Parts: sequence; C-alpha cells; structure tokens
Amino acid sequence: MGYRVGVVGAAGFAGVELVRRIIEHPSFELSVITSDADAGILLADMYPAFAGISDLRFSKHSTPELKECDLAFLAVPHTAALAQAPALLAAGVTVVDLSADYRLKDPAVYEQWYGTVHTSPELLETCAFGLPEITRDELDRVAADHARGEAVLVACAGCYPTATSLAAFPAVNAGMVAGTVNVQAISGVTGAGKKPGPRTHFCNANENAEAYGVGKHRHTPEIEQILGLPGRVLFIPHLVPMNRGLLSTVTMQLTDEAADGFDLEETHALYRDFYASSPFVTVLPLGQMPKTASVAGSNRAQVGLAYHPATRTLVAVGAIDNLGKGAADQAVQCANIVFGLPEDQGLASMALPI
Amino acid sequence: MGYRVGVVGAAGFAGVELVRRIIEHPSFELSVITSDADAGILLADMYPAFAGISDLRFSKHSTPELKECDLAFLAVPHTAALAQAPALLAAGVTVVDLSADYRLKDPAVYEQWYGTVHTSPELLETCAFGLPEITRDELDRVAADHARGEAVLVACAGCYPTATSLAAFPAVNAGMVAGTVNVQAISGVTGAGKKPGPRTHFCNANENAEAYGVGKHRHTPEIEQILGLPGRVLFIPHLVPMNRGLLSTVTMQLTDEAADGFDLEETHALYRDFYASSPFVTVLPLGQMPKTASVAGSNRAQVGLAYHPATRTLVAVGAIDNLGKGAADQAVQCANIVFGLPEDQGLASMALPI
Amino acid sequence: MGYRVGVVGAAGFAGVELVRRIIEHPSFELSVITSDADAGILLADMYPAFAGISDLRFSKHSTPELKECDLAFLAVPHTAALAQAPALLAAGVTVVDLSADYRLKDPAVYEQWYGTVHTSPELLETCAFGLPEITRDELDRVAADHARGEAVLVACAGCYPTATSLAAFPAVNAGMVAGTVNVQAISGVTGAGKKPGPRTHFCNANENAEAYGVGKHRHTPEIEQILGLPGRVLFIPHLVPMNRGLLSTVTMQLTDEAADGFDLEETHALYRDFYASSPFVTVLPLGQMPKTASVAGSNRAQVGLAYHPATRTLVAVGAIDNLGKGAADQAVQCANIVFGLPEDQGLASMALPI
Amino acid sequence: MGYRVGVVGAAGFAGVELVRRIIEHPSFELSVITSDADAGILLADMYPAFAGISDLRFSKHSTPELKECDLAFLAVPHTAALAQAPALLAAGVTVVDLSADYRLKDPAVYEQWYGTVHTSPELLETCAFGLPEITRDELDRVAADHARGEAVLVACAGCYPTATSLAAFPAVNAGMVAGTVNVQAISGVTGAGKKPGPRTHFCNANENAEAYGVGKHRHTPEIEQILGLPGRVLFIPHLVPMNRGLLSTVTMQLTDEAADGFDLEETHALYRDFYASSPFVTVLPLGQMPKTASVAGSNRAQVGLAYHPATRTLVAVGAIDNLGKGAADQAVQCANIVFGLPEDQGLASMALPI
Repeated sequence: MGYRVGVVGAAGFAGVELVRRIIEHPSFELSVITSDADAGILLADMYPAFAGISDLRFSKHSTPELKECDLAFLAVPHTAALAQAPALLAAGVTVVDLSADYRLKDPAVYEQWYGTVHTSPELLETCAFGLPEITRDELDRVAADHARGEAVLVACAGCYPTATSLAAFPAVNAGMVAGTVNVQAISGVTGAGKKPGPRTHFCNANENAEAYGVGKHRHTPEIEQILGLPGRVLFIPHLVPMNRGLLSTVTMQLTDEAADGFDLEETHALYRDFYASSPFVTVLPLGQMPKTASVAGSNRAQVGLAYHPATRTLVAVGAIDNLGKGAADQAVQCANIVFGLPEDQGLASMALPI
Repeated sequence: MGYRVGVVGAAGFAGVELVRRIIEHPSFELSVITSDADAGILLADMYPAFAGISDLRFSKHSTPELKECDLAFLAVPHTAALAQAPALLAAGVTVVDLSADYRLKDPAVYEQWYGTVHTSPELLETCAFGLPEITRDELDRVAADHARGEAVLVACAGCYPTATSLAAFPAVNAGMVAGTVNVQAISGVTGAGKKPGPRTHFCNANENAEAYGVGKHRHTPEIEQILGLPGRVLFIPHLVPMNRGLLSTVTMQLTDEAADGFDLEETHALYRDFYASSPFVTVLPLGQMPKTASVAGSNRAQVGLAYHPATRTLVAVGAIDNLGKGAADQAVQCANIVFGLPEDQGLASMALPI
Repeated sequence: MGYRVGVVGAAGFAGVELVRRIIEHPSFELSVITSDADAGILLADMYPAFAGISDLRFSKHSTPELKECDLAFLAVPHTAALAQAPALLAAGVTVVDLSADYRLKDPAVYEQWYGTVHTSPELLETCAFGLPEITRDELDRVAADHARGEAVLVACAGCYPTATSLAAFPAVNAGMVAGTVNVQAISGVTGAGKKPGPRTHFCNANENAEAYGVGKHRHTPEIEQILGLPGRVLFIPHLVPMNRGLLSTVTMQLTDEAADGFDLEETHALYRDFYASSPFVTVLPLGQMPKTASVAGSNRAQVGLAYHPATRTLVAVGAIDNLGKGAADQAVQCANIVFGLPEDQGLASMALPI
Repeated sequence: MGYRVGVVGAAGFAGVELVRRIIEHPSFELSVITSDADAGILLADMYPAFAGISDLRFSKHSTPELKECDLAFLAVPHTAALAQAPALLAAGVTVVDLSADYRLKDPAVYEQWYGTVHTSPELLETCAFGLPEITRDELDRVAADHARGEAVLVACAGCYPTATSLAAFPAVNAGMVAGTVNVQAISGVTGAGKKPGPRTHFCNANENAEAYGVGKHRHTPEIEQILGLPGRVLFIPHLVPMNRGLLSTVTMQLTDEAADGFDLEETHALYRDFYASSPFVTVLPLGQMPKTASVAGSNRAQVGLAYHPATRTLVAVGAIDNLGKGAADQAVQCANIVFGLPEDQGLASMALPI
C-alpha cells in the first residue's frame, strides 16, 4: 500500500490529470477526490476514459477523509487554496498546491495582482516553490522537514512560468540579459479550464488564434519572481486550437558584454550543463526548435535556442504540456521529491510520438 | 535484460508507436529498428518526442541484427511481410505481423482483394490471428508452441476489423443477427499512414469529413472472416479531422427469434459476460456511447449498445485508438500472450482523461 | 431599398449566419435582429467578424419593429416558433421558420417526438416545407399566395433531413428501395448549437468522434416524412471535430427488381436528371465521394453514389454545410423563391476551395 | 464581358483562392489558369469545391493564351515570377505578382535573402508595392500609367509583412518607436503551401505549435522595408493547427518622448484616423484584441492595441487571412485599384461569423 493521497478539485482539468497520474503511480494510493459541485457523481461518468478503470466518486471538499491523507493536492482556483491549506497542514497533511495562492513570496504582490488579502502570509516563508529544475534547494529543504515528520507545503509553478523559466533561466542566471524580457506564449485550450463558456466553445476556439490578457496576465509577477527581474517582463499569451501544449518564445536582448563575441554553441553548452541532471528537460540540438506535440501528455520539457545578431537577441523557446509539466505532472514530481521517491516515479512516460 | 526485440518498418506510424511501447516495456529490450528509406537517421530527428529518450538510429531491413532477436514486429505494407516473415521464422525469430499478409485464412481471398499471389500459404495454417478477446484459443495454441521453443507467427487484426468485431461479435456469435451487417466507421488521419500526400495534407483533412473506399475497403473480407459472415458485410469507412481514434458503428438487423421480446438489458449482460475477463474492453452502461477520446493513446476499447425497435436493429458501437488497440498496442498484447507475460504488461496506461 | 427583414433568434449560430447572408443580400434590408437574452448588446461585440461592418444591436423578441417587416426568419428553438409565427402572420409578415415546429405535417407525430402539444395545427396545412429541390411545388404554391399579397409560412427542413434527403430521394422516389433506409450522418460542432456546455467544450469535442441520440434523434420522423417511408428509417448521427459540415451516408437495399441487372450509370443519370435544374446540388462523377469541405460556408450540396453488389445496396452520400444549406442559406433560398427573386440571389458564393 | 484574366500557378493555395475570387468577380473574366505540373487536369478534380461551378482545366505556363489577357496574376514561387513578368509586360499584360521577386526595392537585399541574382532589376523602380493601405501612392501612380494604356507591374506584400505592417505602421510612421521592433506571428497551415511533406502532414501539424525560421525568415527584410527600419526587426513566425489565419503580435518600445505622458486613447485615435478611408481595416475598440477567425476567408484585417507601462511598450496585434488579405484577395484589391474599379469590388464579403 502506498501513501494515501487526496485530490481537492479533482473535477477540473489539472485535477483529473492528477487523478490519472496517481491511479497509475506505484507509491501513491488515491483515497479521495473532491469537487463540491459534483459530489456523489462517478468520476467515470464525467470523464469516461476512467470507465472500467475507477469506481471513485467525487466527495465534498469538507470530507473528513482528506485529513486522513498523507498528501493532498489542491487543484482549486486561487483563494480556495488559502481556505484549505492551513487546516490540512495543521492536520498533518502535506500539501502540494497547484493554485497561485502561495507562489508569490511577497503578499503585497499577491494582493496587487489577485485583488484579495493573503490570509496566511506566514506560510509564504516556509513553503517551497515547486519548479524542481530551478528551485531544487527549496524542495530539498521541505523534503528534509518532511523526512522529520513534518507536514510541508509546496506551491507549484504555473504553466506559463514553467515553460518560460525553463527557456530563460539559464541565460538570465548567467547575467547575460539586458532590458526587457519579452515573453510571447501560445497555449492549448485546456489552459482556459473546464468551465464551459463562449471562449472555450469548440466553434469559437477552433480555427482561431488570438492574444489575450496582454500585459495584464497574472503569471507576469510569477515569471518576474523566478527570473529575479521585477518590472522587466512583458508577457503576452495567445490561445490556439489544440487541447494540450504550451510554447513560450522568450526573446532576450543580451548585455553588451554577452553580445560582443557571442558564441551560440557556448550558450547551448551552458543550457545543457544547467539541465544535465534534470531527467525531464531536453535542450535540443542547435537548429531544432521544440514542438508542443513532442511533450504533450507528459512531464517533459524541450528547449531550443537561436541567436539574432542584428538585434543582439537570444531567442529561447520552451515547450511543455500545460496540464503535465505545467500543472499536474510537475505537482507529482514535487511530491516525489518531498516524499523521497525517485523524481520520475510514475512520470517516466513520453509523449505519443505521433 | 529483457527479450531482444526488433521493429521492422519502425518509421511508420504503427512502427513508431511500437517503438514507444517497447522502450517503456519492462520485459522487452529494443535492439533494432529498421526503415529502408531512413537508414542511418536518428529516431529522435524524425520523431522529436524521443529527443533525450532514445539514441537509436534506423537500420536497413536487411540488417543481420534482426535474426538475433527473440521477437520481431513487422509494421510494413502488405507483401513486405510476405518477404520477411518466413526467413525470420526460419532463423528462430517469433514474428508478430501487423500487415494484412497473414490475416486471411484463405489465400484465394487474399489474392482476390490484394491482387497478388500469396507466397507462403503454408504459414496461414499455423499462424494465429491476433485479436485476443476473440481469438484467444489461437494465441494460446502458438504460446504453447513458443513455450516449447518454437518461433511462431501472429497475424494481428487490422484497425477497422478490431473495433468492428469487438462491437459485433458477441451478438453475431449468439446467432442473433440476420441479413447484412452494416458497418460504418470513422477514423482519424493516422489511419491514412505517414506518407505525405494530398489526402493527408493538413489543409485538406482539417475541417472535412468524407467517406472513402465505399464497399471496396480491404478490411471487408477480414471482418467477414472474424464474424463468420462471408458476403454479408457492407463496410464504409470515413475520414475525419483527428489524429487518433476509430469509431465503428455497426447496425445489425435481428433475427425474428431474437427480435421478438427483445430485451436490451439481456444483450448488455451478454456483452458484459463475453468481455468479463478482457482487461482492455469496457462495455459501457446502457445509455452511454463510446467516445474515441476515451481510449486514444491506449490499448483500451469501449463498446456501447442501443436498440431501434421500429427496424428491429441492434446498434453496437466500438471505439479504439487505431494505432493502439487497432495496431501497435494490440501487437504488444499478442506478444505478451505468446511470451507468457501478463497480458497487460506495458499496456496498462489509460487514455488522457482530457 | 430592399424588403425589410427581421431575424428572430439572431444570436444563435443559424441566426447569425442569416444575419450575414441578409447583410450581403441585394434585395433584403436587415431592419431588426432579436435575442431576448442579449437585448442591447452589439452584434459586433458578440460576433467580432461584424466589427466595422454592422452597428446593429439585439432587440427583445417583443420589439414592435418585427411586425413592420416584410419577412421574418425564426431561428429559435422548437416551441418558440409556435409562440411567434401566428402573430407575425396575422400582422402580415411572411415567416420563414428554421425551427422544427411546422415541419411535421401530422401534429400527432410532432407531439410524440417533441413532447408538447402543437398550438397552431391549422398552419400545418397551408405552410410549405422548405427543401426546394424536393418540395418545389409547395414553395411555388405559397409564392403565388405571396404574390397576391398574403403573408405565408415556410417551414425549412432540418440539417440532417436536408443532406439525407438530397442523397436518398431520387432513388426512393423511383421506387428502387426495399426495407430499412440506414442513415449514418456526421456533423460538425456548430450543429450542437451556441450554448456552451461540456459537449461543446473545445477540449471534449476536439480529437473525438462519437455517436449520439442513436435511433432517437428528432430528425428521424422528418426524414421519414420527406422520403415517404414511415417507420423505415434508422438514423444515427455522429459528432466530429470540425465547425461546419454535415455528411450523410445513406445505405439502401434495392428491391429485387431494381437490383437484378442493376446499372450504376443509369442510377447516376437518374440523379443528374433529378437535379438538372437545381443550381445548388452537384451530383459528382462516379468514383468521387463528396467532402464536407467542398460545400462549407455555402448553400451548396454534393452527392456521390456507389453500389455494393454483394449486399445489393445502393450507397448515396450527401454533403452540406449544416448552417448553410442545412439552415440559414436554405432559408434564404426559400425566401428568394417566395419573394419571386432569383433562387440563388445572395447565395451564389462557393465554398473556400482550401 | 469583363477584363480577361489569367492566373499563373493556379494550382497552389494562393492561386486557387485567386481563381475563386475571379470567378465571382463582376469585372473580371477568368480566361486561363496554369500549372505546369497539372496541365490538362480539371480544376474541379483537384479542388472539388469547384464541381458544378467551373469546367476549367489547367494549362501549361507557356500557353499563348496568357499573352492575350489584360491581366495576369503570378502565384508562383520566387524566381518563377522573374521568368514570367518581363515577357508578359512586354506583351502588354498587366502583372500582379504575389511572389517575392519584385517586393524588395534593393536588388542586393533580394540577392542576399533569396540567394539568387535579380534578372530584371529595372522593373523594381517602376513597379508598385501592393499594400494599398500603406502604399496607396505607388498604386495610384501605376493606375495612372495603366489608364494611359501601359501594362504595369504590382508586387504584392507577403502575408506576414501585411499583418505586421498594418499593426505597426501608424505608430512607426508617427516616430513613436525606439529600438528593436519585435514581431511574433502565428500562421495557419495554408501558409506552408500546398506541397505535401512531413511538416504539413495532418498528424504532425495537428495538436502542435512550434516556432520556425527564427530570425531567418525571408519576410524580415520586407517588413523592415515597409516600416523603414533596416536591421531593427526581429521576426519569429509560429505554426499552429488551423487552415487559414495569421496573427502578428508586434511589441514596440516607445521613444522617451512618446512614452512620457503616453495616452493610449490618443494612439488609438491615431490608428483610427490612419485607416479611416480603408474599407478593409478595422481598428478594434480598446480592450478588444483581434481573432483570426473574424477575418478568415475575407480580405479584411483587424487591429488591436494595448500598452504595457512597466516596460513602456506599445503592443499592436494584427489579424488577417494569410490567403486573403495576405495573398489572393489583396492582389485582387491591387488589381481593382490599377483597373480603376471600386477598391472592394468582388471582395466585400465578410468572414463567416461562426
């Protein structure tokens, strides 16, 4: 028997992807799935891919079973995690939160972007930010606490910040980047969530591309925090007609020092070194750019690099599955680290090749 | 170390899906992948989902490594398997063939539909037809031969015959069906193969539905053979804009005996009993019809039933992934049976729920 | 200045397609568009393709402007047309109804399939059924009434009945068909309407094919009425991931008389003759089958024929745009006939060729 | 009877869209369509949307009929227009060229980016660049020449330059922009052309987003020429799964002068004024961003604006149909101007609203 796991908000897209991963995970046992709106409904009636596989039904968020879990994933909208995490932690349940509630270290920034007061700012100091390839130290810290019997909190990175940071971080971290970091990203429609509405209606989303939330998307401060570049990120997301997949094209003007005598192969080597011990990130050979289809349905990321001499700009493109490495799978990866399991346990599968 | 496995025709869509399954299979070790047209090319350069996962390169079909394998999958066009299977078997290599070459038991029928002479008709008598839920006896027979050290041959069912037969067989087998069996199927574009051409160009296939091969598709005699209904199957396939997925809607007029006092719940129970020991086939509750998305990327099948009293017609709908249960995954399932492994080893993963 | 036209239910998919057609129509002037739920909203805010083209806003259904129109299209759900048509006719407004309310000649059949009493059965006798290629006589009759100054009512055929009847009628009409007429149709998602819900969510509809309403779809009695085959139609619709397009594959077992010595070229000639004076229907050369993409966005239909000797079955496939020839465009075609305009006025545009 | 028109390269995607437009155009008569590879083939057999509409067959490029035309559109790859235009002009045929051959005013830039010598550089001085909203003066000049009986040459803008320039030009032209102009565009797959290959195979393009030609795309110098910003454009195109549609997101850092006290409403007014007399360009209200679906299948363009104060960046997004305003329709618009016809003749239709 594995660790008892609950998924709060299991009816949403990230939630149900977590359910799939945990059902197939050798060390976790799925005890309870919750959805206030769907309590009593069979998982397989809502998501028929589970027919013949799982007889689970949704419970209310208030079910006492949650507090008997070893681990709870919160796949709920922001503010809902604020309402749940403290009590679960107090009950000794380790929490891996997929919402935005504990991502921003500064509660004032949270309040500015989310328009609501942060009700448990004390947790912001102890929680770990969950983007293992970049914040491994924080995850190792809470894993050590967990190994000592503590319930710990992980705030997983958002989908756009994950793809963007995997593409940009090694260069920014090396001090190569000047001025504004320009992030233009493309997401599949699962990123818009499960709630039906005009924007997610097939006939509106199909055969259409559009920009949205231009310069105002709430992932902007999160990207700035990860990269350590407050006020320097311009972020423009786009929606295109595919289910899963997120491509972030980051253009970074180099410092004069970095641009003079710039050698793309050196930067490529820098990236390869940076991700040498990361099983899920592949830096593609120069001349190749990542496709979202190469990582869809998996926890994998691919990064490609190019250089534009005329404007002294480094272009780094990152591809992930917004529900995989961008949400549910990364949450499981973080949980594996916290629980001392192999980092890729239950996550090793690759994308469909075609 | 597992059994040494070769995939012949690994660059095609069914071939590369086999490659994925074998790489992730705990008992098989992928030794060699062949593609005459692509010899020397990196698998990961053609299918970048393998970047960071596999360094394999394609070899020529003539590579001697194939004969050192324990098992070879043939994912080649018809007649190409005729050219390969006898020599591999003679070399002691068990062959699981995904082509049409050994499916039809009567070489005259093969020659009529494929327009070419069958050059190894003697193998038609000993080979097993690979549709485990229906031809389990044949597979068990060759598994016993294999256990005695023989190299054996399995001819896997085609994609349309698999979905159609899973939907129709229990009723036909129970003697309930009169007259023509009307099979109308819908396939995703992977079913049209990897070769680029006008029909598979995105801009022709996208936003389009069409019928093709009306009444002339080569899967017709195969369906007739499985169902034991020569000359009684009308088969019309359609192409729609999705990558993977195959839906077969089979309408069967009932015999008077079956129609008088017909009770759909009884027939539903008959189907549930028929598939009770089949881990990959789920008969949906009455009132639900299968979606291809529920099985895409997996070896699973879902079957739904309805009855139309006015015309005394039983409607059975089967959904599979044409490359999964309809090709590569079913081939691995057959190989598992032949090698005495758990039937679902390496195949247990479910479809993405969203 | 043209005839004053109102569109009731203009915010729905068929309604907005009507709006487009009327704006571009040389003899009609769009005076008023209604949507109770959206009154006051700019058309261009809901459907931004109208930005820079139209400043119209939605009115309530109760707006008095409707009764000042020469012509009102009703693009509303069934029962809503019952509530509107009699008063508009009484006010002297000719009504072209796209709903199901006046299609079925027998109010008892209406009540059986729609579960509600027909409140104006007297109109069923005088209204014309709007499928010009087949019911031209009825339309000519009301056109004559209209020319004498009467307000008249046209009940336009539904989308599935249109495609199915265009494919099946010439053969059925020639007395060639025995037994059950088996209709299996494929529709794009606009056919499921504008209302957002799980079924029309992009992520559920995309990469999926499914059957629905098996044997129970309300277009069944309508097809039976057009073909004159009560109780002999088995109709199974399917949903596939495309916006517009409807393909109906009709299989008809021939009578012994028709099957003995059957000559497909003769039947092909019969079809060509039948549609010789129909500008919108093209019978394809033998060997070609219609694609929905060839007619999407237009009022055109294409029909293809094949014969399956083993089962003595004639296969007729019809392709239309479900919102075009299957709804809005056909309604304009009917209005053109009623108003004595050229049948193809404002409708001559073809589908995008790619 | 209208002007006699020939389409050279009519089998390609832009070519066939021209064919559609000319067939439906009231002042043009389509005399000849050419495709060397397809000579003798029926247009309707290659593009079945023409079945029942046109009996035209493709001729060889060398057909003498071309020189009897009043107007020839060249929808051929670069260098092929170099081979055709001079002789047609010499024969008195006005040429509207959709290729890149006469777009770049400086033959050295052409040779640098296209790797081939320009064989008729003298024509670069007299030809007009075809992007009417921006180069109206050039088109008026050649229209005057044409009115005097001369055969003239128009080099139509490419798809990415059209969308990008419509979005960026008013701000650049007003001197508001400093530094690099960052252009990130998204195109549908028709932009990749008709030739089948792995990249345009449905199963590779579907459910995928990717960047390509990063910093090296040949539309870069064309954008720089239109905007008058040599060496200052970074252009990154992306491919996403839709047939038609092109979205260009242009981010422009403002000069200090423009940024200090920047008022987005003023810039919005500047854009509205700039396009006040352009029937095909709609500047959306502030708060709205363009969707490619709103212009697909039409010659229309939509532009949206936003401002990001933190980085002092103006964001302008332009949406067009890459085959419409980005190719064939714009070519017809240019021809209308040259022939003294209403600018929107044959082009007034809007996009499908859904």
